[in-house]
Amino acid sequence: MANLKIGVVGCGRIGKLHINNLINAVPGVEVIAAADPMLDKSGAREWLAERGIENVSTDFMDVVNNPEVDVVFVCSSTDTHSMVSLAAANAGKHVFCEKPVDYDVAKIQEVIAAVEKNGVKFQVGFNRRFDHNHKAVADAVKDGTVGEPHIVIVSSRDPEPPPASYVAVSGGIFYDMMIHDFDMVRYVTGSEAVEISAVGSCLVNPNLQAESGIPDVDTAVVTMKMANGCIAVINNSRQAVYGYDQRVEVFGSKGMASDGNDLLNTTTVMTRDGAKGEKPLWFFLERYNTAFVEQVKSFVDAIVSDKPVAVGAIDGLRPVLMAAAATESCRSGGAWVEVPANL
Amino acid sequence: MANLKIGVVGCGRIGKLHINNLINAVPGVEVIAAADPMLDKSGAREWLAERGIENVSTDFMDVVNNPEVDVVFVCSSTDTHSMVSLAAANAGKHVFCEKPVDYDVAKIQEVIAAVEKNGVKFQVGFNRRFDHNHKAVADAVKDGTVGEPHIVIVSSRDPEPPPASYVAVSGGIFYDMMIHDFDMVRYVTGSEAVEISAVGSCLVNPNLQAESGIPDVDTAVVTMKMANGCIAVINNSRQAVYGYDQRVEVFGSKGMASDGNDLLNTTTVMTRDGAKGEKPLWFFLERYNTAFVEQVKSFVDAIVSDKPVAVGAIDGLRPVLMAAAATESCRSGGAWVEVPANL
Amino acid sequence: MANLKIGVVGCGRIGKLHINNLINAVPGVEVIAAADPMLDKSGAREWLAERGIENVSTDFMDVVNNPEVDVVFVCSSTDTHSMVSLAAANAGKHVFCEKPVDYDVAKIQEVIAAVEKNGVKFQVGFNRRFDHNHKAVADAVKDGTVGEPHIVIVSSRDPEPPPASYVAVSGGIFYDMMIHDFDMVRYVTGSEAVEISAVGSCLVNPNLQAESGIPDVDTAVVTMKMANGCIAVINNSRQAVYGYDQRVEVFGSKGMASDGNDLLNTTTVMTRDGAKGEKPLWFFLERYNTAFVEQVKSFVDAIVSDKPVAVGAIDGLRPVLMAAAATESCRSGGAWVEVPANL
Amino acid sequence: MANLKIGVVGCGRIGKLHINNLINAVPGVEVIAAADPMLDKSGAREWLAERGIENVSTDFMDVVNNPEVDVVFVCSSTDTHSMVSLAAANAGKHVFCEKPVDYDVAKIQEVIAAVEKNGVKFQVGFNRRFDHNHKAVADAVKDGTVGEPHIVIVSSRDPEPPPASYVAVSGGIFYDMMIHDFDMVRYVTGSEAVEISAVGSCLVNPNLQAESGIPDVDTAVVTMKMANGCIAVINNSRQAVYGYDQRVEVFGSKGMASDGNDLLNTTTVMTRDGAKGEKPLWFFLERYNTAFVEQVKSFVDAIVSDKPVAVGAIDGLRPVLMAAAATESCRSGGAWVEVPANL
Repeated sequence: MANLKIGVVGCGRIGKLHINNLINAVPGVEVIAAADPMLDKSGAREWLAERGIENVSTDFMDVVNNPEVDVVFVCSSTDTHSMVSLAAANAGKHVFCEKPVDYDVAKIQEVIAAVEKNGVKFQVGFNRRFDHNHKAVADAVKDGTVGEPHIVIVSSRDPEPPPASYVAVSGGIFYDMMIHDFDMVRYVTGSEAVEISAVGSCLVNPNLQAESGIPDVDTAVVTMKMANGCIAVINNSRQAVYGYDQRVEVFGSKGMASDGNDLLNTTTVMTRDGAKGEKPLWFFLERYNTAFVEQVKSFVDAIVSDKPVAVGAIDGLRPVLMAAAATESCRSGGAWVEVPANL
Repeated sequence: MANLKIGVVGCGRIGKLHINNLINAVPGVEVIAAADPMLDKSGAREWLAERGIENVSTDFMDVVNNPEVDVVFVCSSTDTHSMVSLAAANAGKHVFCEKPVDYDVAKIQEVIAAVEKNGVKFQVGFNRRFDHNHKAVADAVKDGTVGEPHIVIVSSRDPEPPPASYVAVSGGIFYDMMIHDFDMVRYVTGSEAVEISAVGSCLVNPNLQAESGIPDVDTAVVTMKMANGCIAVINNSRQAVYGYDQRVEVFGSKGMASDGNDLLNTTTVMTRDGAKGEKPLWFFLERYNTAFVEQVKSFVDAIVSDKPVAVGAIDGLRPVLMAAAATESCRSGGAWVEVPANL
Repeated sequence: MANLKIGVVGCGRIGKLHINNLINAVPGVEVIAAADPMLDKSGAREWLAERGIENVSTDFMDVVNNPEVDVVFVCSSTDTHSMVSLAAANAGKHVFCEKPVDYDVAKIQEVIAAVEKNGVKFQVGFNRRFDHNHKAVADAVKDGTVGEPHIVIVSSRDPEPPPASYVAVSGGIFYDMMIHDFDMVRYVTGSEAVEISAVGSCLVNPNLQAESGIPDVDTAVVTMKMANGCIAVINNSRQAVYGYDQRVEVFGSKGMASDGNDLLNTTTVMTRDGAKGEKPLWFFLERYNTAFVEQVKSFVDAIVSDKPVAVGAIDGLRPVLMAAAATESCRSGGAWVEVPANL
Repeated sequence: MANLKIGVVGCGRIGKLHINNLINAVPGVEVIAAADPMLDKSGAREWLAERGIENVSTDFMDVVNNPEVDVVFVCSSTDTHSMVSLAAANAGKHVFCEKPVDYDVAKIQEVIAAVEKNGVKFQVGFNRRFDHNHKAVADAVKDGTVGEPHIVIVSSRDPEPPPASYVAVSGGIFYDMMIHDFDMVRYVTGSEAVEISAVGSCLVNPNLQAESGIPDVDTAVVTMKMANGCIAVINNSRQAVYGYDQRVEVFGSKGMASDGNDLLNTTTVMTRDGAKGEKPLWFFLERYNTAFVEQVKSFVDAIVSDKPVAVGAIDGLRPVLMAAAATESCRSGGAWVEVPANL
């Protein structure tokens, strides 16, 4: 069978990550084209050439319109995700789009419509669903081992905060960070949030709001009433000094599934002072290293075997609705905000 | 030094537990008197005689007024805690009172006033503060190891639900179960709740409200804004089928302290099917076995050395205020309810 | 049913431990008599009186011959174990004997013969068989979960060495310390050692041999060929600075069962420096606290229900044969020494 | 700086593993040539071409004599390791040689001499020294945290046995399997074995000796007296049904360092039946995946920075001497066999 031909739009950190994975770790694919507006200033052209990718452009439409290209990877800046996805879907290409698809719900819906109309596959980059630990938690719910989910706790904390300038344009903690955790709650419960209450505070950087110019927080707790009756809690911090803390717990009628962090090593040193062990892997590149590969393999398989994708367009939409509700709730001091069921 | 002479009011399960501990595990004390209205019907008279306690009565005032008695243990039914405590304090006795002191805030305040006026020691039976695991978490906050607390998560789940008839008179989950967890949050953060939001559902027993006749829940999540800026979450379930689940996590500016359950044993069996380990100790008698003794030792030490008690009358009051706020919030669907700072 | 009447010979540390347990934790028994040659010098008479034991003597035969006594607990000095046991068995009493029964195999055999002749129950104090962790390992072998045992590793390390003067009379590490581990290997494998090789060194105290006057070691590794083909390894150290290290691992054809130490608490503190956890419980009184009670309950049950004891006279004999073989091997530099199958 | 040019001799499983790692994961190197006697029959020529390696031959001397080649990776069959290494060293190439260098001590010594004479770097493929877990154990010894090592326990068990035909030519368990563990003991103790006693049995496959035609075992325990006084124990099994079991424990005067297996995931599922967790990673390709890369990075760094290699020729020699002693001991039933200090 011929390799899937892939064109990548956006060659920054995440674009390069995908390109390396596509070349080294994903069988049955070939990266044949790439686009990036900063192709020369950023050194991307040279970086691509070293990997044998010579069909490059500063205009993403050259990738979208390339008749050889089967699949477009949308790794450009967040504000262009929906635009590129729309163009690619309308050009009949399958699309892998980094999260979030857009902050504007109407634009996500446009993408959804285009994907449906053109009969292409569309997957959103919620890579954590492919993490070996979280997946095992979700599986224990799906296969009935923990019974009906009653309480879900997602603890998700970054090792260090982004600059305030990033927050200024990211939409804030609920859009740029907790969006993954909203997806995680949907993933492990198989249910939708009905109402959301969010509280937060600037405990890591008391000057965050002045520095970023938006009323954001760096420590947040969100509570959700889920459609299946289960109550879900997410807690986020921009700074866990001990490293990337990523844990999920589902408590249900028949038991509990919970995971722990992957550690730098398993070694314990026991002395008069007690036991000393290691910290979690530092950040998402280390922790979700394999998950980045697995999600792409899953997408390739969905295309090749013509199966539904694991994380579809609707999965891109719902977390954005949840982030919007959480943002509104947090800014109001914790009021319950409804998450629209259908749009 | 002469032994402290102790009189016990109430010889049900918890009274017997304290009597056995006082005899077998607490040095420097002597149980010399006891009272229980059901002294003969319940077989308590015989049980006490076997332990050499002959000065017994069906009237608690006989214990309170016994001039030999230095300390009264209030282990009677919940609705009599404040009344007995008040009488004992006014008789100049030190008082150990099982939780909750009362559901009526005014009555707790009466007790507080009597304790102050009479210059006696008064300790409330929040035994979990003396648990080896939770204490180590609290110590890591107190000694500065985890820095300023940002997020607290208390997971507290019983192995099996009480009968609906119990719930009918207990005041509901926030009074009879989460009251311990409210105390735990105060204990590990050293801060007070300012506002509380509670959501809950009847997921364990869908007929709970009909059966108990009160609008109670059996699965609850409470979020609290603490005075020190920290956000605290408590989750309760009436039924963790795997056993008593009692865990506390404090995440702060310098790190995280968290504990796990004590297990039936540490043995792991590894086969083709994976690793198999044990469940937590079944319920509070097993898990907090030692904590029950430690709290009494601490109280005895406070009397003998004339030091402040570890868990004072105010510690009996605040969790009741929190339970009231949580109950109100839960019944309203999660509204934020203020916890009065001073009464 | 009438209580079993117990007489205790030897009121030192272990005797007092048993007396306290018999009074507080073992139902259906009564301690009615005790003997100790140092009754008055040691303060034992007063200690016993506080517990209501007034029938006391400096002559153990007064306990043995007391017609009220059903069971004799032999807690006297090691060199008198077999003599007291023999007298008690011949007086028709059931006997609980602290380990080792004797260092002299012939004397153990005399005890075995007397026990058989008089039809009394005889249990040896190998309390570790009743430890919740080790028992779960043994159970996983017995119930077939780990299949045929192939490799056994017993790690057994004390927190601090005894004085050299103790070693001088104890018979050395293989008799006073590893004897428990020899029993453990028999217990978890259900098989007997055929040949033993022992190596050891004075790594904790390089002057041990000069100070004790015997060619003993403080660090030892013993390898055993078991009758069932399994290979067992025991390692001992007189000083694990982090506390009492007591772990057993059985690897077999279908899997592995292994246990860990009970820790002071389960709390982990995670900071920039990594994770910090607790040490094991300090020593045998803490770790085997419950096991001491459980073994006596088991013995009482064997008497009351007329069932075989869990740890019989032969279980007192075999570890002594193993200690003898190990001692000989170690002194020879590790030669393989046969353990006699039958005597 | 120009890339190091690498030629690979032997393109079987381990050769391909190194080639993929050199291309994808090791910066500053280029694979420019390869040789394999089965180049065409095995499909290696095509496999190499896909990776842009066109300079290929069936004669390893074409790699050795290639003037462009800076470094030769010896990944050919075990019986040719020393011959190829010798030729490469004499041709002035740096050499990375898979373990074991040879079973014949004299041939290893020839290689050592050639390496010294030609002033080239020579590293042996003891990849486990670069495992994140074992390295942390070794570091805790090196930095003094555990003090003087007293007892070392290496547990090393494969998930499934090789065919008897493999054992027939491998030299047996001590050469093909425990050789890694001999290296591990040297690595973590920093000391040499003086005397070795080995016992073993055919417990996995009772017909192993008949099938393989050599007096080999599949379950083995080795005890070693180390030059620094420490006692080391290695246990091997050809079949741990739960997966690759790789653990190291060093107990010393100031504490203990020990590691655990990396697991398939960290998720625990707790139900009425207890806790269920995952098995270790299946085998060496999964467990030592990163270690394979790290060892090569370390070797490249030694060349580029002209530093001593981490695992030198002497490290190839000593484990072979240990395997010889263990083999002799095991076949004699466990006699102590001296390991020659110098040859």
